[in-house]
Amino acid sequence: MDKINVIKVGGAVVENEASLKELINQFATMPGYKVLVHGGGRSATRIAAQLGIESRMVGGRRITDEDMLQVVTMVYGGLVNKRIVAALQAKGVNAIGLTGADMDIIRSHKREPKMVTMDDGTQEMVDFGFVGDVDHANGQRLASLVKAKDGIEAAVPVVAPLTHDGMGNILNTNADTMAATVAKALTEEFDVTLTYCFEKPGVMADAEDDDSVIPSINTESYARLKADGIVSGGMIPKLDNAFDSISSGVKRVVITHFMDIQASMGTVIEK
Amino acid sequence: MDKINVIKVGGAVVENEASLKELINQFATMPGYKVLVHGGGRSATRIAAQLGIESRMVGGRRITDEDMLQVVTMVYGGLVNKRIVAALQAKGVNAIGLTGADMDIIRSHKREPKMVTMDDGTQEMVDFGFVGDVDHANGQRLASLVKAKDGIEAAVPVVAPLTHDGMGNILNTNADTMAATVAKALTEEFDVTLTYCFEKPGVMADAEDDDSVIPSINTESYARLKADGIVSGGMIPKLDNAFDSISSGVKRVVITHFMDIQASMGTVIEK
Repeated sequence: MDKINVIKVGGAVVENEASLKELINQFATMPGYKVLVHGGGRSATRIAAQLGIESRMVGGRRITDEDMLQVVTMVYGGLVNKRIVAALQAKGVNAIGLTGADMDIIRSHKREPKMVTMDDGTQEMVDFGFVGDVDHANGQRLASLVKAKDGIEAAVPVVAPLTHDGMGNILNTNADTMAATVAKALTEEFDVTLTYCFEKPGVMADAEDDDSVIPSINTESYARLKADGIVSGGMIPKLDNAFDSISSGVKRVVITHFMDIQASMGTVIEK
Repeated sequence: MDKINVIKVGGAVVENEASLKELINQFATMPGYKVLVHGGGRSATRIAAQLGIESRMVGGRRITDEDMLQVVTMVYGGLVNKRIVAALQAKGVNAIGLTGADMDIIRSHKREPKMVTMDDGTQEMVDFGFVGDVDHANGQRLASLVKAKDGIEAAVPVVAPLTHDGMGNILNTNADTMAATVAKALTEEFDVTLTYCFEKPGVMADAEDDDSVIPSINTESYARLKADGIVSGGMIPKLDNAFDSISSGVKRVVITHFMDIQASMGTVIEK
């Protein structure tokens, strides 16, 4: 089976000119089949603010009303995605920008209002708005773009964190979840490695100490790390996605620095 | 040779909910291979205004400084494009959104400042900014997406008026020119019909009279219509693109109402 690398890169990396350039270099020189999944939350917050639209987050997730949906559709699908595509093309990578709506690659449904535990421990009913929870990904269509075939050139998908509901609506979908969805969908045709990269060297025992990277986490140690408060905040949904991927056929999941996506460094997720 | 329809639809149609819905219905039910090329200038002007960015036009063309480039990248590549893609998917059309940067489909170079005749007849040096004049279109890659092949599903490209320069920069490119570029690039593999559709029934002898559609225009009558002032403004670059397409291998060019793209109505362009 051919190998493929699915790289998820966070907003903080792609929204800074210098780190975006480094990431593009790292990703462009990575050999073999590959897919890039990106975020863009900071740009969305910035553009929303310029438009007089307030960004409201609950548990690290964006409340997406109709105005905010317009913003994320513009920013993720247009501004961030096309900038990455053009930068990769300049490096000779045959990038193609995609959302879940394009070729119906990832379909979702609008999330129902649900009970959420707030930071202060209280429970509250939250309507996340136009947020999509993934129902189905079309791995074959993605694979058909990725693989060269009969003169059809191989492409490198650059996936924005947007899905659609099949009824004409774009929905905002968490980029970590998008990456896990893409990785799982590709397992039928590829031996998949999923790498979550960001501006830290991995999951750290001490957030202040870059030398404290935890080399591997399994379900047991994950429970302990959560109980001890070492893993918290946005790292929890990321790790939940990582464990979900590993138990759904993805061969290897790594959390690492964006400069280390070609190296064997960072935190490896084990069953 | 297989037939293909390249439909260019103006911003005024796609930016109005009701007319967009009608267009989507017309386009979705159109049989055979097809491509949709869209504008989005009014949305760009609206979002730019909300961001405090002034839209400056010279001869119907947008001056695209760095801020405006961000706006058009977001609006054309994200907001307008993904809305159309999701709406077509809801009708069972396997739409895929593209800019010229995606799969390197259309490459351009930044327009040098040039002398332009202003509305008052004076000449002025104008720097259009990040505007791309097309150098090359990759018809084979477009055709590879359009044609089903060995289990790779046929896709319907939805093209936004953005190109790239191969050096990492997105450039703003006129949507009528994009449509002509796409149509010409597809002539190697298809018998191409290019249809410019908008909210009028065709090129009209009297702008106020919908019954005054000119059934056909050739180069001779075009010169006369221009001299008489019957054809003016934004219709001139559109017709220039139409004649350029016809003399470059496109089989048929029609200018018609967006409700008539499946009918044999409107103005036909002849050599």
